[in-house]
Amino acid sequence: MSTEATDIATLVKNIALEARAASLTLANVPSEQKNRAILRLAELIEENVPFLQSENTKDLAAGETAGLTGAMLNRLQLNEKRIAGMVEGARQVAALPDPVGESLDTYKHPQDFTIEKVRVPIGVIGIIYESRPNVTVDCAILCLKSGNASILRGGKEAFHTNTALAALVSRALEEAGLPSKAVQFIPTTDRAALNTLLKLNEQIQCIIPRGGEGLIRFVSENSTIPVIKHYDGICTLYVDKAADAAMAESIVVNAKTQYPSVCNAAENLLVHREVLAFHLPQIARGLVAKGVTLKADPEAAATLEAAGIDCEPATEEDWSTEYLDLTISIKVVGSNEEAMSFINKYGSSHSDAIITADPETAAEFLNGVDSSTVYWNVSTRFTDGFEFGLGAEIGISTDRLHARGPMGLRELCSYKYKVVGNGQIRS
Amino acid sequence: MSTEATDIATLVKNIALEARAASLTLANVPSEQKNRAILRLAELIEENVPFLQSENTKDLAAGETAGLTGAMLNRLQLNEKRIAGMVEGARQVAALPDPVGESLDTYKHPQDFTIEKVRVPIGVIGIIYESRPNVTVDCAILCLKSGNASILRGGKEAFHTNTALAALVSRALEEAGLPSKAVQFIPTTDRAALNTLLKLNEQIQCIIPRGGEGLIRFVSENSTIPVIKHYDGICTLYVDKAADAAMAESIVVNAKTQYPSVCNAAENLLVHREVLAFHLPQIARGLVAKGVTLKADPEAAATLEAAGIDCEPATEEDWSTEYLDLTISIKVVGSNEEAMSFINKYGSSHSDAIITADPETAAEFLNGVDSSTVYWNVSTRFTDGFEFGLGAEIGISTDRLHARGPMGLRELCSYKYKVVGNGQIRS
Repeated sequence: MSTEATDIATLVKNIALEARAASLTLANVPSEQKNRAILRLAELIEENVPFLQSENTKDLAAGETAGLTGAMLNRLQLNEKRIAGMVEGARQVAALPDPVGESLDTYKHPQDFTIEKVRVPIGVIGIIYESRPNVTVDCAILCLKSGNASILRGGKEAFHTNTALAALVSRALEEAGLPSKAVQFIPTTDRAALNTLLKLNEQIQCIIPRGGEGLIRFVSENSTIPVIKHYDGICTLYVDKAADAAMAESIVVNAKTQYPSVCNAAENLLVHREVLAFHLPQIARGLVAKGVTLKADPEAAATLEAAGIDCEPATEEDWSTEYLDLTISIKVVGSNEEAMSFINKYGSSHSDAIITADPETAAEFLNGVDSSTVYWNVSTRFTDGFEFGLGAEIGISTDRLHARGPMGLRELCSYKYKVVGNGQIRS
Repeated sequence: MSTEATDIATLVKNIALEARAASLTLANVPSEQKNRAILRLAELIEENVPFLQSENTKDLAAGETAGLTGAMLNRLQLNEKRIAGMVEGARQVAALPDPVGESLDTYKHPQDFTIEKVRVPIGVIGIIYESRPNVTVDCAILCLKSGNASILRGGKEAFHTNTALAALVSRALEEAGLPSKAVQFIPTTDRAALNTLLKLNEQIQCIIPRGGEGLIRFVSENSTIPVIKHYDGICTLYVDKAADAAMAESIVVNAKTQYPSVCNAAENLLVHREVLAFHLPQIARGLVAKGVTLKADPEAAATLEAAGIDCEPATEEDWSTEYLDLTISIKVVGSNEEAMSFINKYGSSHSDAIITADPETAAEFLNGVDSSTVYWNVSTRFTDGFEFGLGAEIGISTDRLHARGPMGLRELCSYKYKVVGNGQIRS
């Protein structure tokens, strides 16, 4: 390693050691104190809007010079609406119940002592994210509320904005009497810092990458620390032979068009052969009216053509494509089983729905589709921590271990066992 | 890759694809059918003792030729007691409640539909283990009962025995009408097979290494699939100033000597300065009577010397050494806080205990020690799935995510959300 890389490795290691020490304190502070820090941060953000925006302007100017796309500049921007969103989010999290300390289970051992399972923080969580600066505040607050220390490593595009926000977080922690090292921002965007961070197993217990597939893949392939992944969604809607046509149209249109660029929006539509001629044209007209491009297999295409509706041919690749846009792939199936096999093969185990009036078929689908959230007669767009009653979310896990689906405060926790007796020994 | 390596990669990939397909079936079969397979396996083992032992003899002979140590040959041996243990274990697991399908939570959405969180299997679990052939049966059964397909990769020393056991597992699955590919044994000990296996993220959802630290480290550094680690334990006992001397002696002697070669045995003893002169000699005599070697810091050494008890000097390295043998490191501390800092610094976050009559000090310790299991006036030797009422265990996780401490059938599961409505869309 060069001297510079060694310096960065030392810097990051020290940050992690400080975070680990802070996490031991943070695990046992009262809820009231954590909430005080969160509410103070909300105030500090409100009091420092001009400062935040002037720092943000530096990032935006650098981004324009560097030739960032409009979409990237948009993500980078900390406008008043986004600032208000951060503040509002902070106050919401402060109002949520504290997940730490909850008793999850108690077992009475035959030798007359108790084993209690209690929810505790995970420890130190590393958040690796890209250009949205509001992630700095959102993640710091969720980790803090769940008693975890956090190390934030944001994208270089948002460096000035993130640094400014991180300074406010430190102030809020100090003013609430909490260790200021409980939330730390990596003060360099050198890649060496990330590479060091991802190997600090002794100090950091969990890594959460927030961003595009490339970032998540890089992090999960290079981290020796457990990673909770939030990959995107290839979500499928299945219109069964027992589906009500109006309900099918309404759900398909909603799942595809209400917010097409998010992970719980639908990408594939399966229609049962028996209702193809009647249901598909109605659904397709609803989609076309919202500007959706239809890609269809030959059988669906023939039906659409007969009804005078334009479509393009769907390719094998389309079935596993996440458009994140106003395009949908349509395929005809002959049975619920065929629909489930399709979803388990091409989908991303995120959110899938069946539309049917038949409870038996629905039960088969709910059990047989291997996805984190499976819907019966409801739009896939509801996969979300707020909609699921979690009060907040740090993301939607596409993993099977620890957390699956929307991750709220409880999913940011681990547990420990407290064993209490009066001298018991094992024989 | 060489042709051979390509062949092995293809072989392993096919095994994983078959396991993935089998897992989708297995996730939804009735408990009764899984139990039938487990009970049939118990019978088949009993019916095939001579065959199993003759295959085991081949491994033992090869092991002797290869110069395995006595301890390794002992681990390899499938004697009648171990066979009886496998059979008994199988019948116990068959009798346990099925963790799959249990409703964990229900949320009523304001738009009048329900979101139910239900326990489901993880999917496909890869078990990487060393020379104990009973792991083949133990792990196959635990995965099967929890609805998971499993891929077993045992050590080369036990290859004949493992192959024979795996054949019986396949027969039991078939006779119970379950997919025989739900449990598969990798039929080669080539390292290329392991390297392929650890990258099959699409088919395999979880890797559990069972064995020594070297194996676990290799697996966790080379796997792109989430790994649940079962590292060893550096467990500490703290005799507080308010400890009863007799209870302290009893717990320390039990935790150190009852079974010194396991992960929940104690390695460090901390004694509060205020009770040093009286408590330490009594505890030390109890330990010496069981043949324990004492390694002490200067202050403890002086006390022991004054009492006429032999000891060796403890080094800095000793505080984080897992002896797994009749040796203990002893250190004097001035406060509960000092004890907790020591444990959080040198321990392995496994199992630690305080002996005290003071409930306030105990509560501080139970909260402040960052370990998966923290004991008050109980021996650390109880950290175990059976002792914790889990009915069985696949290991003791030293991770914070997903499972921490003893892992039973429930810890071999994930969950999914089933959402049921009547046409709800998001606005």
